[in-house]
Amino acid sequence: MSHGKQFTLYTHNSGPNGWKIAYFLTELGLTYESIYLDFGKEEQKAPPHIDLNPNGRIPTIVDHSNDDFVLWESNAILTYLADKYDTERKFSASTEDDKYKQLQWLFFQASGQGPYFGQAAWFSWIHPERIPSAVERYQNEVKRVFKVLDGELAKREWLVGGKFSIVDLSFITWTVSGTTRLAGPGYDASKEVPHVHAWLQKMLARPAIAKVNAEKEALSQQ
Amino acid sequence: MSHGKQFTLYTHNSGPNGWKIAYFLTELGLTYESIYLDFGKEEQKAPPHIDLNPNGRIPTIVDHSNDDFVLWESNAILTYLADKYDTERKFSASTEDDKYKQLQWLFFQASGQGPYFGQAAWFSWIHPERIPSAVERYQNEVKRVFKVLDGELAKREWLVGGKFSIVDLSFITWTVSGTTRLAGPGYDASKEVPHVHAWLQKMLARPAIAKVNAEKEALSQQ
Repeated sequence: MSHGKQFTLYTHNSGPNGWKIAYFLTELGLTYESIYLDFGKEEQKAPPHIDLNPNGRIPTIVDHSNDDFVLWESNAILTYLADKYDTERKFSASTEDDKYKQLQWLFFQASGQGPYFGQAAWFSWIHPERIPSAVERYQNEVKRVFKVLDGELAKREWLVGGKFSIVDLSFITWTVSGTTRLAGPGYDASKEVPHVHAWLQKMLARPAIAKVNAEKEALSQQ
Repeated sequence: MSHGKQFTLYTHNSGPNGWKIAYFLTELGLTYESIYLDFGKEEQKAPPHIDLNPNGRIPTIVDHSNDDFVLWESNAILTYLADKYDTERKFSASTEDDKYKQLQWLFFQASGQGPYFGQAAWFSWIHPERIPSAVERYQNEVKRVFKVLDGELAKREWLVGGKFSIVDLSFITWTVSGTTRLAGPGYDASKEVPHVHAWLQKMLARPAIAKVNAEKEALSQQ
């Protein structure tokens, strides 16, 4: 740990999952050094990263204040950081029932939003062959997931515990991509899922989130 | 709760995620009533299920001994059941560090195995159009995930904490499908990923797992 900060964060300059961790570390006021892996060179699948994370995907953190404890999977990391460093429960569940509701929605984000939104991106822009039926399948799933969220956010301002928490935060990056590009041409989130739209705007206006997004934007200009 | 059992489990007779919960409730010796939803009639997206789970997917549990507490997302349910009812930590992490390793692997299963194996199944058998490049994409991901697991299981018998736990259990159903059908023709798991193969056989031989699988098999004959 020659950088002197509490955490090392192995991440990527544009992928969605590393930025979740940057958001939350910034909300908590904790210090971290980001190491941006070059996916073109497959650095995520090479040492030193692969020795820390056999899955070869980002993010991975090392907590230097906890005996260099290593953890990967972004929503596991958010939960770890909340349990250890959000001791006042400002951003995380403060009751026993809410603790499991928090976990439920984190699993929904990780299994129901991330992979399907990722496939929408893949078949829209990366897959070597244009397959309209696959693009449509995943655009429909983006819209379905937003409808699920919109129904919940019509009933309450935040998903769990009556406050902005790691649950809401975990949805930010893919919700930005989903509402601007992934749902397909002509999709207007402010009309289709107004509660999701308002929820996202509130989150993007938070100083910590805006600060990290400005860093992300600066990196994309390099 | 007219059935007199501790849990109601909303599930499906063949889908992978509901059976995880049946396995673990059986390992714990807890009583439950399974309600098998008919996906052909979209019962998972209709009341009473949709009123409990706005995502309209299974499994969902109701814990009648905890004020009818409702929870969905299979790996959140496994964690809840372990925390509440595996008080001796027979099947779950017993140290602070292992608690987060447990969560890390549960997130890997939920986000890295489930959705990708599910897409392999979709494009192999359900998608209305035959798309070889999509089938190949997901068969390759099945093989990649097995290689990640195999590398870990070459170093230790169980994924976390030196014992069979909810982590290993969470992988059973998709690993059965993956090793028998999803990786594509000619794939021999006993040769390609021998540690995964041996791990799966040990789990399938457990009395609780075998009992539930016999029930599943009986249902599939109806």
